[in-house]
Amino acid sequence: MSTRAGIVVTGTEVLSGRISDRNGPWVSAQLLELGVEVAHITVCGDRSDDLLAQLRFLADEGVDLIVTTGGLGPTADDLTVAVVSEFTGRELHTDPEMRATIEAVIRNWRKVSGDLTPAMTAAIDKQALIPDGAEAVPPTGTAPGVAVAATDELPAILVLPGPPHEVQAMWASALATPAVVAAIADRDSYRQHTLRAYGLSEADLAESLLQAESEIAGFDALEITTCMSDGELEIVTRFEAGAAPTYQAVEDVILARHGDRVYSTDGSTIGEVLAGLLDGRTIGTAESCTGGLVAAALTDRAGSSSYLLGGVVSYANEVKSGVLGVPADLIGEVGAVSEPVAKAMAEGARRVLGSDIAVSTTGIAGPGGAVPGKPVGTVCFGLAIDGRETVTITRNFPGDRAAVRRRATSAALHLAARALRE
Amino acid sequence: MSTRAGIVVTGTEVLSGRISDRNGPWVSAQLLELGVEVAHITVCGDRSDDLLAQLRFLADEGVDLIVTTGGLGPTADDLTVAVVSEFTGRELHTDPEMRATIEAVIRNWRKVSGDLTPAMTAAIDKQALIPDGAEAVPPTGTAPGVAVAATDELPAILVLPGPPHEVQAMWASALATPAVVAAIADRDSYRQHTLRAYGLSEADLAESLLQAESEIAGFDALEITTCMSDGELEIVTRFEAGAAPTYQAVEDVILARHGDRVYSTDGSTIGEVLAGLLDGRTIGTAESCTGGLVAAALTDRAGSSSYLLGGVVSYANEVKSGVLGVPADLIGEVGAVSEPVAKAMAEGARRVLGSDIAVSTTGIAGPGGAVPGKPVGTVCFGLAIDGRETVTITRNFPGDRAAVRRRATSAALHLAARALRE
Repeated sequence: MSTRAGIVVTGTEVLSGRISDRNGPWVSAQLLELGVEVAHITVCGDRSDDLLAQLRFLADEGVDLIVTTGGLGPTADDLTVAVVSEFTGRELHTDPEMRATIEAVIRNWRKVSGDLTPAMTAAIDKQALIPDGAEAVPPTGTAPGVAVAATDELPAILVLPGPPHEVQAMWASALATPAVVAAIADRDSYRQHTLRAYGLSEADLAESLLQAESEIAGFDALEITTCMSDGELEIVTRFEAGAAPTYQAVEDVILARHGDRVYSTDGSTIGEVLAGLLDGRTIGTAESCTGGLVAAALTDRAGSSSYLLGGVVSYANEVKSGVLGVPADLIGEVGAVSEPVAKAMAEGARRVLGSDIAVSTTGIAGPGGAVPGKPVGTVCFGLAIDGRETVTITRNFPGDRAAVRRRATSAALHLAARALRE
Repeated sequence: MSTRAGIVVTGTEVLSGRISDRNGPWVSAQLLELGVEVAHITVCGDRSDDLLAQLRFLADEGVDLIVTTGGLGPTADDLTVAVVSEFTGRELHTDPEMRATIEAVIRNWRKVSGDLTPAMTAAIDKQALIPDGAEAVPPTGTAPGVAVAATDELPAILVLPGPPHEVQAMWASALATPAVVAAIADRDSYRQHTLRAYGLSEADLAESLLQAESEIAGFDALEITTCMSDGELEIVTRFEAGAAPTYQAVEDVILARHGDRVYSTDGSTIGEVLAGLLDGRTIGTAESCTGGLVAAALTDRAGSSSYLLGGVVSYANEVKSGVLGVPADLIGEVGAVSEPVAKAMAEGARRVLGSDIAVSTTGIAGPGGAVPGKPVGTVCFGLAIDGRETVTITRNFPGDRAAVRRRATSAALHLAARALRE
């Protein structure tokens, strides 16, 4: 039987949509990697009753492990440990070792050598409480985690803090607690393969999968999920080791039908693929509507300084002309959102930055700015490569300003990758 | 009594952490704005049993409305409508009007005027199914939404598609369905106020709130939540209209103690505040470690072309020298990550871009690149303003590469805003 887990993300700021949760996805990916199936993620505000209800729900669903994030801070709305103690019927006690650790951290952070204020003492006391029989997970901030072993009635519960970097830093030691080790001891070894495609619709993929299903025995052993995001289609398949030949047969069908659209068969992202395709060549950017997002995407990987020389965000036409050398007359004649201007931007960026390759974007991200024949979402791209004719394309993207900017960024990376693959 | 809602986000790609959900936060914020309290958000994969369990959980928790997103597509893993039909004990039938709408959309998208393929027909048939007695919400993509009225036993259920732009485009008509109108008719009118601070710790705020609690009668009528993210502390307070004077008294305490750190009392973001402070002046950027993120942040608002002229991403030292005019000797002498280089970058950006103001970043985002005295997370900033002495600062940020880049971006915006406020 497979091991199932549930994740509870706490925090009114997450529940109310003010911040986007990064812990649920991260913990989920880690558990999946370990072979633990994540059945549910639940998000609740800083309210005892709702948190209690979610813990009860996950326990009733029979998960083997519950991981909570958030609600371990010093303020009154941080109530996870108290609720877990109530839920598991365990009293709270002070962990003296943790108390000393927290006090040392606070003294160091706040540079206090003498007496602590009453508020500081209260904060330290609160964060050093753990349920009887539970194990503390040493903090990287000020909040220790807590691991409570499973009982006949209840799953194991791992309580982690809210800041994502603390969750990530504490993960290894949390996994090593006897409570968690025991909870996930029976996990399966699943395999997971990821294909990534650009310019392939979900409907076209669905047709191919229907074909594969009719042709390939054992197709049902594969759990295939697809996700379309900003023009990228991700196809993730999860299966037990024995179904590997079946998976390979399905992948062969997809590649036979859509090989020109599939850019990655090993889970690598377009940023990683492009970095590999550059193969020692350097790249630069000239951006208008994407406003720096293409350069930001090209610099998000460690080591990107070996290929990204730099970029010019030429938002104003004066910068297009003054820095990139796009003739002002040309802009006046055909408009800033045009393939000739995209071409001149890309070639200007190569010249100014000294890169082997440059990619450019100029478009109408909206909501305003549309002109006859150029609706919101129109984006022109240029790609200049040393020794080749500069190419340009025009695309039209749906969605709001943020979506147009994201899609245009993705398209710019794919334009460069496709050209380098040729 | 207040009206409570639950949100169910479906999709294995969200549950497994491969993509970050944008629908839960968006729907939640919309509901809160309407005065509907969101009690729970749950995320489940594309599995009937888990989805059914979550619907049952929310119904048992007594919510008045469940909003689901995702699972309405043409593929086999899209099963929300079928599960909702099972959960509510309603048969599925074809909605002829929706079927015609979907067929027209598909013919248009895929440019088919003659016979449809069997796969297309199957996709259309599947997406036109709605539960008996439910109302279809017209699609903006190919998937209609579904609104099912509450019964004595079950809450109202609003079923929406997965792509965020479709959810957002369909929201207004979904709210107008009789099922949803009835479900949220009794909602309260809450008020919500947001303060935003930079450079204020949660612990310092907690002390101030303790003081406010001891001094201000009726403090308990306020639901105050705080959230720290990339150096920004957001303080959101929700209360019924009658508690407005209490809220004002608390806000006064916070402003008296931390007024220099609070940069927004009306919910506006640093981007909006900075745009206002620029007051007709233009700005440009010179970025190294942030790689375009500062320019991207300055262009994410509509109308940003009125103040952001452009930016230079000078990742390579040759670009710092060649484009921004930072003396190569200076870089050789003090290193690229230094205040003198940050100063020269900012002044170079002003000169090259022709802006009134320019802000620069140069730092070590990691994981590599640390040198003695300059650990990972060290970032130097420069701010050049027409008619003023250029200022520089050095900060050290915790976290991984992405966190350092985000925090440095936020710090650059705040550096500029604080100087313009003086």
